[in-house]
Amino acid sequence: MAHTRPAQLPDPPYYAVIFSSLRAEGDNGYAEMAQRMVELASQQPGFLGMESARGADGLGITVSYWRDEEAIAAWRQNAEHSVARRLGREQWYESFAVHVAKVERAYRFNRSPSPAEQRP
Amino acid sequence: MAHTRPAQLPDPPYYAVIFSSLRAEGDNGYAEMAQRMVELASQQPGFLGMESARGADGLGITVSYWRDEEAIAAWRQNAEHSVARRLGREQWYESFAVHVAKVERAYRFNRSPSPAEQRP
Repeated sequence: MAHTRPAQLPDPPYYAVIFSSLRAEGDNGYAEMAQRMVELASQQPGFLGMESARGADGLGITVSYWRDEEAIAAWRQNAEHSVARRLGREQWYESFAVHVAKVERAYRFNRSPSPAEQRP
Repeated sequence: MAHTRPAQLPDPPYYAVIFSSLRAEGDNGYAEMAQRMVELASQQPGFLGMESARGADGLGITVSYWRDEEAIAAWRQNAEHSVARRLGREQWYESFAVHVAKVERAYRFNRSPSPAEQRP
């Protein structure tokens, strides 16, 4: 999946959850669960989009965007997500930080007028 | 610089600027300017911290944290930063999105009690 562009989002206001993490050693089921959480989050009411990157220094950043605080709270209560959060603390992460923030303004730049999918 | 942890930040409220981008082909002075911008941003009044990651799919996310909107506006007025933003549109980015968001709450997890620097 090369050439991933920033998520397409509606006009603000909405919420962003910024999840920054350093992974612990070993996979221990992380990759599978991470993929499942992306699928599951995308199905939640009020989910607007998600962006994710992890660099060579081990730091990963995932930003998910939500319509309002109620949508974030409901996702937090999701049973599978709760299990994943517990396993995250027990096994997958050396360190993480979560920031919940209200998006007040946003702008976007695209070099090509239409963001056609590029396949390498 | 392996094992980079999430930025250490004060208690909210403060602001986050989420910059998500897809790079264009070629370096064209990008790496040098990116490093300079990190140095310069870190010296601005009201700068609180920064986290950055770029994954194999080309999507990069940089989150910078600021004391207030005035600090963000002042950084935006910085002359060198203005040149970098222009070059970003002209040369370095295929696509980007900027979200300015007010951090309302934050929490943090560290497996090890003291985040000692680990050298591989």
